[in-house]
Amino acid sequence: MVLDHAFTLVSRVGFEGLTIGTLAERVGLSKSGLFGHFHSKEQLQLEVLETAVDRFMQGVIRPGLKAPRGEPRVRALFKNWLDWGRGHVAQTEGCVFIAAANELDDRQGPLRDRLVDYQREWLAGLAHAAQLAVEEGHFRFDLDTQQFAYEFYSIILAFHHASRLLRDSRSDERAERQFERLITNSRPTPRSALAPPRATTAPTS
Amino acid sequence: MVLDHAFTLVSRVGFEGLTIGTLAERVGLSKSGLFGHFHSKEQLQLEVLETAVDRFMQGVIRPGLKAPRGEPRVRALFKNWLDWGRGHVAQTEGCVFIAAANELDDRQGPLRDRLVDYQREWLAGLAHAAQLAVEEGHFRFDLDTQQFAYEFYSIILAFHHASRLLRDSRSDERAERQFERLITNSRPTPRSALAPPRATTAPTS
Repeated sequence: MVLDHAFTLVSRVGFEGLTIGTLAERVGLSKSGLFGHFHSKEQLQLEVLETAVDRFMQGVIRPGLKAPRGEPRVRALFKNWLDWGRGHVAQTEGCVFIAAANELDDRQGPLRDRLVDYQREWLAGLAHAAQLAVEEGHFRFDLDTQQFAYEFYSIILAFHHASRLLRDSRSDERAERQFERLITNSRPTPRSALAPPRATTAPTS
Repeated sequence: MVLDHAFTLVSRVGFEGLTIGTLAERVGLSKSGLFGHFHSKEQLQLEVLETAVDRFMQGVIRPGLKAPRGEPRVRALFKNWLDWGRGHVAQTEGCVFIAAANELDDRQGPLRDRLVDYQREWLAGLAHAAQLAVEEGHFRFDLDTQQFAYEFYSIILAFHHASRLLRDSRSDERAERQFERLITNSRPTPRSALAPPRATTAPTS
């Protein structure tokens, strides 16, 4: 599949490094043939982003959703995401979304807009997973689930930085410890456990 | 100053986007004159990295070291670093080091090596600031100061991601809350406070 090759290429050279010319060379097709299919570099980039999101859905989110609601699901999402950041899920060089975030943060256009939409959706999904953990009584009823999602993301960003740039052999252990602290801080404290969670929030599915 | 212009250029287009040609155009000097001075693109990039480190020293580290040892100094370093990440310290578009980290993480060569050396030094400096806070009795005696530095860095990475890519209007508040939680988790607990810190660690300057 052409898009599989394009995805692999983006994971190595970034979205800016992906051109119809370099892709044509890689897959052994004519540039004009590929251009006829994708019409523009921008369209090709957008389709590669969709491919990346599909891989993330299949390799990180879907298997995570099979874990029981609450803390077990939050843990499964973390484990799968860390594997994704290692490049183990989609045979990439690190996380294409983090690379794209830095590549596109001061650009304009549809590629950046779609990336931002997807990242916001994923943060909302993490906040929702935390909210389910509140409803299950695993996390405290007054947890700020958006802050939880934000800090969850920070763990992945730091792991990526430490493992990819610094090649820190302890990055796995560091990320896991930071995650355990986030979980511990999210659990009911003796004081907050006094207030029943179901009285303050309506259950969501 | 030519290097000031080069630094500003790198903060916008990255190290790869900096060439002797683009710099010559920007400063209105001849390409051959600049080439005679810097000899190669690689040398120019290395000198820009030194310039960035100087700015960071002057704008983040030195004013931070004027704060009293312990938690006040840790707080001052955080405040200055966040300002740096906002681009307020050196009039940059975000943090040049975070941009460079993503640009260079899967490259090889002296520029990457120097960047890694500087980042490791800075992490060691943060761990040292935390160690001083342990010795002052502000942080608990059994704090893993390297883990503290790692998590400190994660807060800046997440802030950069949220403010630059997602343009999250609450990124300041989120970063500050994450930092406060790191500080709270680092303070002596009633149990750990029972063991005197000075009995286990020798004071350092």
